[in-house]
Amino acid sequence: MSRINVAVCALVLACAPRTPDVLRTGRWIDLTHDFSSEAIYWPTAKPFTLEVVSAERTPAGYYYAANNFSAAEHGGTHLDAPVHFAEGKWTADQIPLERLVGDAVVIDVQPGADSSADYRIDLKALDEWERKHDAIPAGAIVLFRTGWSRHWSNRAKYLGTTRTGARAVSELHFPGIDSAAAGRLVERRVGAVGIDTPSIDYGQTSTYPTHQALFAANIPAFENVSNLDQVPVKGSFVIALPMKIRGGSGGPLRIVALVPRGAG
Amino acid sequence: MSRINVAVCALVLACAPRTPDVLRTGRWIDLTHDFSSEAIYWPTAKPFTLEVVSAERTPAGYYYAANNFSAAEHGGTHLDAPVHFAEGKWTADQIPLERLVGDAVVIDVQPGADSSADYRIDLKALDEWERKHDAIPAGAIVLFRTGWSRHWSNRAKYLGTTRTGARAVSELHFPGIDSAAAGRLVERRVGAVGIDTPSIDYGQTSTYPTHQALFAANIPAFENVSNLDQVPVKGSFVIALPMKIRGGSGGPLRIVALVPRGAG
Repeated sequence: MSRINVAVCALVLACAPRTPDVLRTGRWIDLTHDFSSEAIYWPTAKPFTLEVVSAERTPAGYYYAANNFSAAEHGGTHLDAPVHFAEGKWTADQIPLERLVGDAVVIDVQPGADSSADYRIDLKALDEWERKHDAIPAGAIVLFRTGWSRHWSNRAKYLGTTRTGARAVSELHFPGIDSAAAGRLVERRVGAVGIDTPSIDYGQTSTYPTHQALFAANIPAFENVSNLDQVPVKGSFVIALPMKIRGGSGGPLRIVALVPRGAG
Repeated sequence: MSRINVAVCALVLACAPRTPDVLRTGRWIDLTHDFSSEAIYWPTAKPFTLEVVSAERTPAGYYYAANNFSAAEHGGTHLDAPVHFAEGKWTADQIPLERLVGDAVVIDVQPGADSSADYRIDLKALDEWERKHDAIPAGAIVLFRTGWSRHWSNRAKYLGTTRTGARAVSELHFPGIDSAAAGRLVERRVGAVGIDTPSIDYGQTSTYPTHQALFAANIPAFENVSNLDQVPVKGSFVIALPMKIRGGSGGPLRIVALVPRGAG
C-alpha cells in the first residue's frame, strides 16, 4: 500500500460512521431449520416436543401464551460439542465464542451428493476450493453444501429411512465428510465445521472417524444447517450461537451468516 | 459531510480490507447465563432438566456423550416473543433477524435498583441517557443494567422468594420497567429490549403493562441477561439468537455483544 493510500485510509477515520457499517448494511441470512414435531432427529433420539401451557386470555384480562419443550440435544439444526465423541474436550457451554464466529468458507459438493446418497466429501473437494481461493484460513467456519437441506421435509430422502430405533441406524443414507478431509480441516486449524445433512460422518459409517478426528482437536460441528445456497463461497461471516447447556454434548443452534453488501 | 470528505470516503473502498475488520478485531462478550438445574425459572414454570443418555466408551471403542433436556420456554436467559402477551403477534420463529441484531444502548439504573427490589425504571432514566447521548435510535437493542445478575446464584435475592407454584408469584420482588418508559421505547421504535432481571415488568406487577405495551408493538424482550457491566453504554453491537421454536412464545436465547476495539 502506498503512502498516499495509507494517508487516505487514516483520513477516513474522520468520516467513517462510529459503529461498524457492515453490521448495519449487510444481509443477515438464517441458516437454521425451525424446531417442530417435523424437525428431523436421529432414529434413536428423543424428538422435539412442544407442550402448550397457555394460549388464551387470562381471567385478569390479558392474553398469555407459554409452552414447555423437550428434545434430545442432537436433532434439528444443532451443535455437536467436542465432548460428544471426545472425552474431556469442550462441552457446549465451554466453547469460546471466538470459535463460534468466523469467516465463512462455503464448499459446494452438490454434484457429488446428487450422484449418490453415500457420497463422502474427500480431499479432492478441499483441494479444488483451495486451488481457486487459496488455503482455508485458520479460524474459518467451513460449511459444506451438499444441497441436502432441500430434502428436509422428506424424512425418507433426508435420512434414508423413516424407521426409528437402533435397528434403523444401519439404514441411514446421506452424504458426509471422509476422514482424510477431516484431517486436512484439523491441519488448517479451522474454527468449526458445518454441513446441511444430519451428520458430518456419512450415513453408512459405524465408527464416526470424522467426529473423532475433529472433536479430538476441539473443533465443534454444526449439523442440519440450511440455506447454504444463499451464502457466497467466501467473503461472508458466520455467527453460530448454540443454547448454552452446562455440560451439554451439543444442543439447539441458531446459525446465521452476515453477507456484506456487494458480496455474493 | 463536505464534498472532499465524500471523495475521501469513496477512495477508502480501494484500501479497506475485504471482510469487515470489526468482526475480527472486536471483543465478543457473552451476555448469557448457562442452563443447568440451578438456572432460575418463574415459580410456576417447569425448570430446566438434563437427562444423561450416554457418557462412556461404547462397545465399538469410541467415547460417546449425549443428553436429553426439557424446560419451560421462559427461564434462564431467554426470549419473550411478542405473542407471549399479544395474540397474533410474532412467535419466536417469526421475528425477523434484523430485529434481533442492532446497536446496543446500555442504560445503567443500578443506583435505583440498589435502593429497592421493587424499583421501576421510569422516564427519568431514559431522559437522562438521552440527554447525554442523544435520542435512542430506531432499531437499537436497549439493555437495562440493574446489576441484578450478580444475584443469579442466590434465588431468594434474585426472585424475592425461593418458593414455587402459583402462590409464590405474589412474593416476587425484583426491578422492572414501568409502563411510561415502555411507551417511550415503543415511540423510539427500538428493535428489542433486554434486562438483567427475571422480567421486563417488576416483580410486584399483576397486570404486566410493559409486556403488553412492547409486545403489542411487536418488540421482543430478552430476560435474565448477564454481564452488562462489560458492555459500554453505546458503540457496541448486540446479536441475540433465540432457539427457533416454531410457534414458540419464547425460548432459550444466546445473546452476545461485539465491542469494537477502542470502545468501552
